[in-house]
Amino acid sequence: MLIHLVNPNTTASMTAKARAAAETVAGPGTRILATESAHGPASIEGPYDAAFAVPPMLARIAEADAAGADAHVIACFDDTGLDAARALTTKPVLGIGEAGFHVAAMVAETFSVVTTLGRAVPTISANLVRYGLATRCARVRAAEVPVLALEEPGSEACDRISQEIARALTEDGAQAIVLGCAGMTDLARRLSHIHGVPVIDGVAAAVTLAEALVRLGLKTSKIGGWAPPLAKSMTGPYGEG
Amino acid sequence: MLIHLVNPNTTASMTAKARAAAETVAGPGTRILATESAHGPASIEGPYDAAFAVPPMLARIAEADAAGADAHVIACFDDTGLDAARALTTKPVLGIGEAGFHVAAMVAETFSVVTTLGRAVPTISANLVRYGLATRCARVRAAEVPVLALEEPGSEACDRISQEIARALTEDGAQAIVLGCAGMTDLARRLSHIHGVPVIDGVAAAVTLAEALVRLGLKTSKIGGWAPPLAKSMTGPYGEG
Amino acid sequence: MLIHLVNPNTTASMTAKARAAAETVAGPGTRILATESAHGPASIEGPYDAAFAVPPMLARIAEADAAGADAHVIACFDDTGLDAARALTTKPVLGIGEAGFHVAAMVAETFSVVTTLGRAVPTISANLVRYGLATRCARVRAAEVPVLALEEPGSEACDRISQEIARALTEDGAQAIVLGCAGMTDLARRLSHIHGVPVIDGVAAAVTLAEALVRLGLKTSKIGGWAPPLAKSMTGPYGEG
Amino acid sequence: MLIHLVNPNTTASMTAKARAAAETVAGPGTRILATESAHGPASIEGPYDAAFAVPPMLARIAEADAAGADAHVIACFDDTGLDAARALTTKPVLGIGEAGFHVAAMVAETFSVVTTLGRAVPTISANLVRYGLATRCARVRAAEVPVLALEEPGSEACDRISQEIARALTEDGAQAIVLGCAGMTDLARRLSHIHGVPVIDGVAAAVTLAEALVRLGLKTSKIGGWAPPLAKSMTGPYGEG
Amino acid sequence: MLIHLVNPNTTASMTAKARAAAETVAGPGTRILATESAHGPASIEGPYDAAFAVPPMLARIAEADAAGADAHVIACFDDTGLDAARALTTKPVLGIGEAGFHVAAMVAETFSVVTTLGRAVPTISANLVRYGLATRCARVRAAEVPVLALEEPGSEACDRISQEIARALTEDGAQAIVLGCAGMTDLARRLSHIHGVPVIDGVAAAVTLAEALVRLGLKTSKIGGWAPPLAKSMTGPYGEG
Amino acid sequence: MLIHLVNPNTTASMTAKARAAAETVAGPGTRILATESAHGPASIEGPYDAAFAVPPMLARIAEADAAGADAHVIACFDDTGLDAARALTTKPVLGIGEAGFHVAAMVAETFSVVTTLGRAVPTISANLVRYGLATRCARVRAAEVPVLALEEPGSEACDRISQEIARALTEDGAQAIVLGCAGMTDLARRLSHIHGVPVIDGVAAAVTLAEALVRLGLKTSKIGGWAPPLAKSMTGPYGEG
Repeated sequence: MLIHLVNPNTTASMTAKARAAAETVAGPGTRILATESAHGPASIEGPYDAAFAVPPMLARIAEADAAGADAHVIACFDDTGLDAARALTTKPVLGIGEAGFHVAAMVAETFSVVTTLGRAVPTISANLVRYGLATRCARVRAAEVPVLALEEPGSEACDRISQEIARALTEDGAQAIVLGCAGMTDLARRLSHIHGVPVIDGVAAAVTLAEALVRLGLKTSKIGGWAPPLAKSMTGPYGEG
Repeated sequence: MLIHLVNPNTTASMTAKARAAAETVAGPGTRILATESAHGPASIEGPYDAAFAVPPMLARIAEADAAGADAHVIACFDDTGLDAARALTTKPVLGIGEAGFHVAAMVAETFSVVTTLGRAVPTISANLVRYGLATRCARVRAAEVPVLALEEPGSEACDRISQEIARALTEDGAQAIVLGCAGMTDLARRLSHIHGVPVIDGVAAAVTLAEALVRLGLKTSKIGGWAPPLAKSMTGPYGEG
Repeated sequence: MLIHLVNPNTTASMTAKARAAAETVAGPGTRILATESAHGPASIEGPYDAAFAVPPMLARIAEADAAGADAHVIACFDDTGLDAARALTTKPVLGIGEAGFHVAAMVAETFSVVTTLGRAVPTISANLVRYGLATRCARVRAAEVPVLALEEPGSEACDRISQEIARALTEDGAQAIVLGCAGMTDLARRLSHIHGVPVIDGVAAAVTLAEALVRLGLKTSKIGGWAPPLAKSMTGPYGEG
Repeated sequence: MLIHLVNPNTTASMTAKARAAAETVAGPGTRILATESAHGPASIEGPYDAAFAVPPMLARIAEADAAGADAHVIACFDDTGLDAARALTTKPVLGIGEAGFHVAAMVAETFSVVTTLGRAVPTISANLVRYGLATRCARVRAAEVPVLALEEPGSEACDRISQEIARALTEDGAQAIVLGCAGMTDLARRLSHIHGVPVIDGVAAAVTLAEALVRLGLKTSKIGGWAPPLAKSMTGPYGEG
Repeated sequence: MLIHLVNPNTTASMTAKARAAAETVAGPGTRILATESAHGPASIEGPYDAAFAVPPMLARIAEADAAGADAHVIACFDDTGLDAARALTTKPVLGIGEAGFHVAAMVAETFSVVTTLGRAVPTISANLVRYGLATRCARVRAAEVPVLALEEPGSEACDRISQEIARALTEDGAQAIVLGCAGMTDLARRLSHIHGVPVIDGVAAAVTLAEALVRLGLKTSKIGGWAPPLAKSMTGPYGEG
Repeated sequence: MLIHLVNPNTTASMTAKARAAAETVAGPGTRILATESAHGPASIEGPYDAAFAVPPMLARIAEADAAGADAHVIACFDDTGLDAARALTTKPVLGIGEAGFHVAAMVAETFSVVTTLGRAVPTISANLVRYGLATRCARVRAAEVPVLALEEPGSEACDRISQEIARALTEDGAQAIVLGCAGMTDLARRLSHIHGVPVIDGVAAAVTLAEALVRLGLKTSKIGGWAPPLAKSMTGPYGEG
């Protein structure tokens, strides 16, 4: 089984970290194809960045489909471009935010999300509402750590995230934590050990759920919003998209 | 007052029709700057098309800002790129879907939406939930009319839409109708006359609401998801975006 | 265009203040007809006061209809008598609470309301649920300022409201504020300047939205609860109502 | 125990019918004081009628309080003036709509409401949302029977209501029916027998629930919207209210 | 009228206390048949205990039915086994949690629940959502008092509960309190007196509501999930159940 | 990895069918331990049956824990006893209803459930609300096929289910179908082929999700309702439970 893990920003160190997380949890016989977008923003912090990240990410998905991918994972916690990707390919596609929420809902009645910046909160909250799982989420919190700070050795990012988890457990009544950024993927087990509750990394969650969907033989339903794109004039740099 | 009306697809006849609708309702002293995207899809029918429409649309918004626009209207009923646009500019931005829903909620307890294709329904439904107005919407219906058929003289598009409105009134208990496509902007008054209920065109609705926001001296809140984009590496065709 | 602004209590200084707010934002060619109820309570602080305010307010709406009003604005943040008014007239009617919520939802993902007394909170909260916009409102707060204190020069009312706004921004995650009383209409711009977020006055909001509905040629739907009153025996002081 | 049953319209035959329903279910030692408003509309069919019904109804509640009533029941399915009444008196007050919904929720997972006219549906629906019990209600249906037709011997009103109940059971999946008008109070047992499901009359339901509240020694909470009216200038026909 | 009050745990002192509460509020002519389960857990603190409490409780309900009970009250705030009981008998069945929520909703716009242990909160919260009354509940709080501590004279249980009520009134905006355990039944009037708000005991609430349902002649609807059990092989200790 | 699949009824042919479904999708290295309850009902059709099924099922879970199970799957679509099981063991536990809903939500925006009998609908609907995924479910439908008819070769059960699926696609706008009974596990692929949409079997779904949770190293959160049972007197046939 070949799982395509696409990092929709251009920062290769994030891709490498996500690949490592994916390989740790993947079952026997599962291979990970990890890519990042060829161009676009170096990190996705809000809807403006996301707008420019989607077209190059869709190119990666088309390439991976051609290379035989059985499923795709979008390694950005905003689930950037998830609808467009599901329209593009017949293979299952999972966002890491979506995956983290589903997994949390299977091990805890109520969870909180700890993400990077406050500006990311509204998109995550809106996604939770759309997926239905907002009723399971006590609160979406921001540790006020920029995405790329997670790539810097020795930054105080992990400490801040840990402090925010402590607040979530005390103030929100959360029973589990979902880490709200692909760049936090290496922190989950350590933070779970410190706090004594399930701490869920969306990358790992999405990879195992993608394997589940492939084993189940399921594909994205093509009735409705994820129907294949209609043929039409498409001009500009992505005209061949 | 200068209102920028951007058609995020590349079909100039739709831009012209939207401009005409805008000018009909604009107050004294309001000028309409109507643009369409320089490239991208000829129509937006689903999230894949939308993905490629957003970057060139954002370019138009930046240009119109520089030209002194007081507010922006996105003339696609999916409210394509609305979050990114609100992050980009400090001026008010309205989507025509959003505007249609708000206006309908001021003249009817319950409304239905009649859009083009079934594949558009999930995005519209998700927007309604996010805006909060899903509780006011009885049903989102598709007349199964392709977007560009609305541009063809003599097509049966208007008849099909009228039949779907009749069903909405009978089956949904709708008290008003929101037309779910920018290309339907010229049909609203006629259909309202036929059916004896308010029939709302999102383009006209958005223009008058944009005027309201400008007169109120209000700007988009920059706390949260619509905060200005952070400076970062942005490569590729929109690297200057 | 003639907009009728009715203050449903009997305090003329509130009417004058609301008229001033209305005239500041009205477009060219819009005239404001400002009235207050001929009798009833001096202020509306809870549902008991509201019960006695509605019949005389409806009389003002009927008179203004006869005088050629194109739309009506009810200048009480509880939207007192809004349903009855919409049944009475075919012209658009807006409550200032409703208008404030809609406008806030166009410039902020999440807003808080700051009203006068705690006893006003449940009605406002129930209105938000009914309108659908409760999902956009972080919290309805009371500054514990009586309505008529807003009419006293030199009272500390504005300070208390400003302090409550500060709490809303810190504690609720609000991105904008809706002022929850017609008597606060003169404070919006100053408070917006102090706090750096949109602060919305319902009176001004309702006047611009009423203008929008008139320009759009829309009338209240008469299917459902706002159907014209049925002819029947009506005795007592409002028997001619 | 003295239960005051107030009919907020002026039609004495409805009062008599409601009194009979109340006396049938009242426990030993409970007396029913049945009144109707001294003036106002002959029936309440929509929010305009309701506006004029509330002030005279509040007068009856004040009189009954003085006469030693232990609780009040408002015998209009719209729960007209319920908030104002709860502010006026410290004794428990129940609306017959509210009571019917609560009782239905104790004997059925899902119920439908069958009311008189379509124009009554939005108020009933909004009440259900406010009370929280909208999630238990499959649908609010109108049999299109005017309120006063229920007072005419030999009318086909009961047949129409029975047919609408049949539709509710077939189409809505309703497990019980709430009759949506005080004037239907004499029909509940017969319709329950015909259809083999619980058919709930709000008048009888409210009387037994009022008895329950009195036995429990409970009074309306005076924190919040039902706080006692504040002293203030109140002019006009209800100035002494 | 004979009301069967079943304590689904095996602690006879709780049964006695519940019986006393029931007899205090029961109307003239109502007799209380109080039972506890013949075996099972000594207290119900979480879903594991509840699983073992239900079969013996159902046996008590069958016995009481045979003895002529007109209605049943389940005296555990989790409403343990309520669905199974409603399927077993045609007589009305009320849970004390359910009853407490309904009664609170008739005297307060918003209430909080104060229960024993934090582990009880999720079940109570889920019940509130299912019943529809979650929208009326500000918060479910735990005083961290074990159930059986309520049976020990001189314990500090009542003090802790009182402190938690004080927090609910200050922090939650609650207008009334529902006591969240059958073992608190003797505390309601005292705590209501101390805090000046309605404090509701579910046992007393359920008994009066059960009387109401019996007087109304209503039985549980047998359409849907509460249909009588189907005949089938049932082996094991409850094979005769 | 050892996955324990427990059938909470006593019908061994259902266990065998569920085991076959599980083994078809399990990954390399996963072993399935399939058990059924030692006693209790032959099928679970409603909450009364469920009450007697839970204690013996919990015994199987304790035994499987002792035998080294890494996760448990409850093979009844009502998710019978899920909370009690999660309290009992530290290992992940999944219900097949829950699993089916989560998987459906990953491949379709909107799904319908097709279950056996109408009496099963309310429990499934309530579960959907509690899990949060009710917003993704268009409708829960019953094919009116008794559970054990699914075990009879040559019954028309599959045809009826297929007809109900056809109605779900036409009438509900469903984009995928979840089969609502463990006994339907062998039908999913055939029905998916016939109808051209994802048709999801909860047993297979739960097994792959259980594998995912094990690979992720996650355990059920023990904060809240799934905390380990407290030591206490437990008498009767399950006194050792």
